[in-house]
Amino acid sequence: MILTRETDRAIGRQLTEQLAEVECRFAAELISDLPAVNGLVEHIEQYRGKMLRPMLVLVTAMATGRQEPSVTDAHRVVATVMEMVHMATLVHDDVLDEAEIRRQGVTVNSLSGNETAVMLGDYLISHAYHLCSSLDVSNDDVSRLSDDGSPIVVSRIVADATNTVCEGELLQLTNRNNWALDEGTYFEIIRRKTASLCGVCCRLAAILNDADEATVEAVDQFGQKLGVAFQIVDDLLDVVGDEETVGKTLGRDLQKGKLTLPMIHCLSQLGTDERDRFIGWLNVGLARSNGVDPIQVIRRRLLEGGSVDYARDWAMRLVEQAKESLNELPDSPARSTLLQMADAVINRKS
Amino acid sequence: MILTRETDRAIGRQLTEQLAEVECRFAAELISDLPAVNGLVEHIEQYRGKMLRPMLVLVTAMATGRQEPSVTDAHRVVATVMEMVHMATLVHDDVLDEAEIRRQGVTVNSLSGNETAVMLGDYLISHAYHLCSSLDVSNDDVSRLSDDGSPIVVSRIVADATNTVCEGELLQLTNRNNWALDEGTYFEIIRRKTASLCGVCCRLAAILNDADEATVEAVDQFGQKLGVAFQIVDDLLDVVGDEETVGKTLGRDLQKGKLTLPMIHCLSQLGTDERDRFIGWLNVGLARSNGVDPIQVIRRRLLEGGSVDYARDWAMRLVEQAKESLNELPDSPARSTLLQMADAVINRKS
Repeated sequence: MILTRETDRAIGRQLTEQLAEVECRFAAELISDLPAVNGLVEHIEQYRGKMLRPMLVLVTAMATGRQEPSVTDAHRVVATVMEMVHMATLVHDDVLDEAEIRRQGVTVNSLSGNETAVMLGDYLISHAYHLCSSLDVSNDDVSRLSDDGSPIVVSRIVADATNTVCEGELLQLTNRNNWALDEGTYFEIIRRKTASLCGVCCRLAAILNDADEATVEAVDQFGQKLGVAFQIVDDLLDVVGDEETVGKTLGRDLQKGKLTLPMIHCLSQLGTDERDRFIGWLNVGLARSNGVDPIQVIRRRLLEGGSVDYARDWAMRLVEQAKESLNELPDSPARSTLLQMADAVINRKS
Repeated sequence: MILTRETDRAIGRQLTEQLAEVECRFAAELISDLPAVNGLVEHIEQYRGKMLRPMLVLVTAMATGRQEPSVTDAHRVVATVMEMVHMATLVHDDVLDEAEIRRQGVTVNSLSGNETAVMLGDYLISHAYHLCSSLDVSNDDVSRLSDDGSPIVVSRIVADATNTVCEGELLQLTNRNNWALDEGTYFEIIRRKTASLCGVCCRLAAILNDADEATVEAVDQFGQKLGVAFQIVDDLLDVVGDEETVGKTLGRDLQKGKLTLPMIHCLSQLGTDERDRFIGWLNVGLARSNGVDPIQVIRRRLLEGGSVDYARDWAMRLVEQAKESLNELPDSPARSTLLQMADAVINRKS
């Protein structure tokens, strides 16, 4: 994703090394004395995708470091924790979506049943917090226990983000089959379920480098805007992507009654009759009937009616805003890499 | 459960007050700005049962305190965290078991679907770690990050226990429909999925009172033995309990292919023919066929063949061992209450 021609060679090499360390840490932390558990963990390691979240932690660390090494062991721990949390949400999302394919691999739920997928997700979450807590020590001053803000506790910042992620997922679930879902709620859902975690990846990377408040806020904004754009593109790929390239069953969102930006825009543009026809299709999970494949009709409408462009424009605007927030940071090869990562969000095909 | 006639009045009063504080804390921590989320949380609060885990934390704190107050705010935090973790496992267990009734209430999965149940469980787990991390502060000494044992981090001890709980659940899942399940594996499953959390409730209570290592180990053993006994009785109630009193669908374990101690004992006692007949029933989820209700036949066999007594004897032996481990503690009203809690595990009807 980020190793483009422009990417500074040194950064690229450093990042590749650091990501390899994160992968090792990930695998090492999840080893169990139970062979059955190890088999399941090996299975989900094939889900590993772009490692966007670990990359956000590591590159932000490089861009905010004021002394060498700018990427500390604490950064690698946070990067691993974020990948575990993300992987857990993927495993649980697949239960939610009844998905059968994830990144060209069979999902845990369809392979070993929902029960195993639920527990495996829990196993990942538990290990994420376990690893994360290695960055913290016990607070013996009982009088400070109920005092939230200070002191900084990495586990607490991470758990705060996961609280928000769960709220986003629950908000999305309570809006299933809500064909009147508005843009505001859509953005609220993805801000919580996706952007919050990306924001905290960058925020923690800067905090662990003792960056000043302005820098911490700037990179947090970068992560959040990038996260929203990333989710919009993800949702676009689900309706107009290429199944081969994306590597998962397409049209799932609409089939499961999840309206995303292009469809929300599309429905708002339709006349009553066509709107009713579309909603009729959504109500029956886009099932084919007398030769008509609703998903194909809808796809064409999204493309020709400008809804795809509308969503893509939103993503591009957010990527521009993300990049602007980095004006706060001194110019550096790492900063340029962050800017390239933002652009890559728009151009990705999977 | 513990407010028996013999219970010291002062302890009883103190415990009731402390548990009420835990309930308030529980509700306060889970409040969201999203009404839909609050509705779901209110729903699961009806699942609240005996509050065994918070009680283990609080009474152990009373029994190990060397200065007043023996129960600190940290203890109440841990008690609340343990109840949240337990509640999360209940919500996810119901997805695993496809249960429809829990403590006389409709389960989240059957009410709002598996998706919501999975996410609500995640929401509870996330908030549990969020609250727990309020007991910890960040460790700035990077060189100590990878050092596990010291320093003591409450979040890490809790996450260590939840890692074990997930392993227990996964071990149980991989043994579904394994009619050759042996006692050793059964005990390994319940040691991990139930006993580990009970043990850590007592362990943390003592650690937070700066108790010496011998005391910490003693109460940990007490919690673990009590936990195993508690699970055995739980499993017994599923086959021979009274549906009304227990407040959940009975016979679920066998229907879902989960062998528990009485059935493991029963199968080992049967002759080939009867064994094959029983396994035939288990293979079809104990479905009624030409007038025969397998669950009733099996129930009678478990009672008359001595398998229920066999499992109950195991539970009683474990309760005795749990009580013996408390010899390490000085005599006190709180210690007597712990002893009574152990006895109550055997006598409970729900």
